[in-house]
Amino acid sequence: MTEFEIIQRYFSRPPKRALTGVGDDCALLRPDAGLDLAVTTDMLVEGRHFLRDAEPRLLGHKALAVNLSDLAAMGATPRWATLALALPAADPAWLAGFSDGFYALAERYGVDLIGGDTTCGERRTICVTAIGEVPPEMALERGGARPGDDIWVSGELGGAALGLAHPEIPAAVKRLDAPEPRVALGERLRRLAHAAIDVSDGLAGDLAHVLERSQVSAKVEFEKIPRAGEFRIVNDPQLEKDCILSGGDDYELLFTAPRERRAALDALAVELGLPLARIGTIETGSGLQILDAKGMPVPHRGGYDHFGRR
Amino acid sequence: MTEFEIIQRYFSRPPKRALTGVGDDCALLRPDAGLDLAVTTDMLVEGRHFLRDAEPRLLGHKALAVNLSDLAAMGATPRWATLALALPAADPAWLAGFSDGFYALAERYGVDLIGGDTTCGERRTICVTAIGEVPPEMALERGGARPGDDIWVSGELGGAALGLAHPEIPAAVKRLDAPEPRVALGERLRRLAHAAIDVSDGLAGDLAHVLERSQVSAKVEFEKIPRAGEFRIVNDPQLEKDCILSGGDDYELLFTAPRERRAALDALAVELGLPLARIGTIETGSGLQILDAKGMPVPHRGGYDHFGRR
Repeated sequence: MTEFEIIQRYFSRPPKRALTGVGDDCALLRPDAGLDLAVTTDMLVEGRHFLRDAEPRLLGHKALAVNLSDLAAMGATPRWATLALALPAADPAWLAGFSDGFYALAERYGVDLIGGDTTCGERRTICVTAIGEVPPEMALERGGARPGDDIWVSGELGGAALGLAHPEIPAAVKRLDAPEPRVALGERLRRLAHAAIDVSDGLAGDLAHVLERSQVSAKVEFEKIPRAGEFRIVNDPQLEKDCILSGGDDYELLFTAPRERRAALDALAVELGLPLARIGTIETGSGLQILDAKGMPVPHRGGYDHFGRR
Repeated sequence: MTEFEIIQRYFSRPPKRALTGVGDDCALLRPDAGLDLAVTTDMLVEGRHFLRDAEPRLLGHKALAVNLSDLAAMGATPRWATLALALPAADPAWLAGFSDGFYALAERYGVDLIGGDTTCGERRTICVTAIGEVPPEMALERGGARPGDDIWVSGELGGAALGLAHPEIPAAVKRLDAPEPRVALGERLRRLAHAAIDVSDGLAGDLAHVLERSQVSAKVEFEKIPRAGEFRIVNDPQLEKDCILSGGDDYELLFTAPRERRAALDALAVELGLPLARIGTIETGSGLQILDAKGMPVPHRGGYDHFGRR
């Protein structure tokens, strides 16, 4: 199978909102007038982000999901994506599974795959760039948190890291392999939140980015952090704490909003069928305090860093 | 050095035309009203596209140059780029060289580096996505060639492939390592050409893409194809033919234009200081004929294919 046959067979579904998609030197887009564009890119490397025998359908889903999660964290509506792949061989079963997983998520959110690159490489490497749209001045930036804001988080944290530590727990492994980008939540937060980030490297590290960019401090109540139900089975408090505070790959949204929005956010949680938990408060100053039920500091590592852990 | 320190030290020059650049979940752009966007992505893999000891400055240049070349082939003006890197270690000398080479080319063409991803991987892998702007209906697509069009090519072909075969010839190696994207030519061709492609996989293969998409045929006169001067030193007619017709990595523009534009294109060549050669004609039907001085067919392989050659 040549590079062109790979593209033709697996990556040529016609775009709905692009003038020209896959097959020319570039894709051509006509963005809606008056909207800003949000652009993000993520690279997944075999042996680092996934194992060689990882299920290709889940990998296709995840490669796009982590990018849609970044768009959601800005309050942007996903529109287009490009996909670059380095593959050791043109394996039809792998390509069919991967492209199915990718397109299934793309079609669910109205995302067009508009272009890409396919090349040979010993280790599978996947790079997706996603582009979304957001009305001017409505994007949710990390730097928007203000003293007095509540700190909120969607869904449950720690499940993905638990799946890595305990691959015998299917529900946790599913959180690791098939994260759901919080796209609808991100869009609705445009008018409700001051700042947002997706929890990809761990709550402590990701919240620290918001605090630094916003030049504020935070107090978080450890007991209020929503966590995967499977921790009850495992009953390992140290692992639970590590997964919740420093585990990556959950792809929930962490955001701050003024107190006046509490009722609106509680109603939004019901409407979206997605729990939203209030876990702390933004204050003046700098630094992050995580406190236990007795008000004592909970020690924690920072978030995941690809080079720092070496 | 952590991932965040790498970004801070080497990849944080402030953008000139983006609302938010590196450092949030996404970059935010406000495109000029009324322009279409051209988007392209290319991945370079160590051991396949470059050697482990490749000069990092040249690699930074080339990773962006191949993407700007795709924008040029659509007639688009380059504006923004993202960069995803997988690296075996945080090597300060490599990072400094690579980012210098990348930014030097980016700044020359007014391109903002707006975001990216840095991760760990055994083999260096570089993925760039570039976004450009082009007025509506002015983009140069592969499918626009019409019977009667002249076929043109910029600069000289075969030099990059010669540099690969003869690494002792510095001028040829420079064509391989430091290609110059034909950005100004692409912009000017908007009003002059019917179709364009960049010669990245070899003249024969790339022209075949134009013919297929345009549903036309072509006759090319082999002797008229402009070629790197260094072939005179080597004096190997078979190698010369292979490099010119099937060698990749030249990144010149191949385009078709009606006869009435000959004088304008000759004048443009003088204005840009870039030779433009007329090498053949578009005809009805299908297929590509390359003819020698006696009118006999010149046999040739197709262009480079990452999987087909295995």
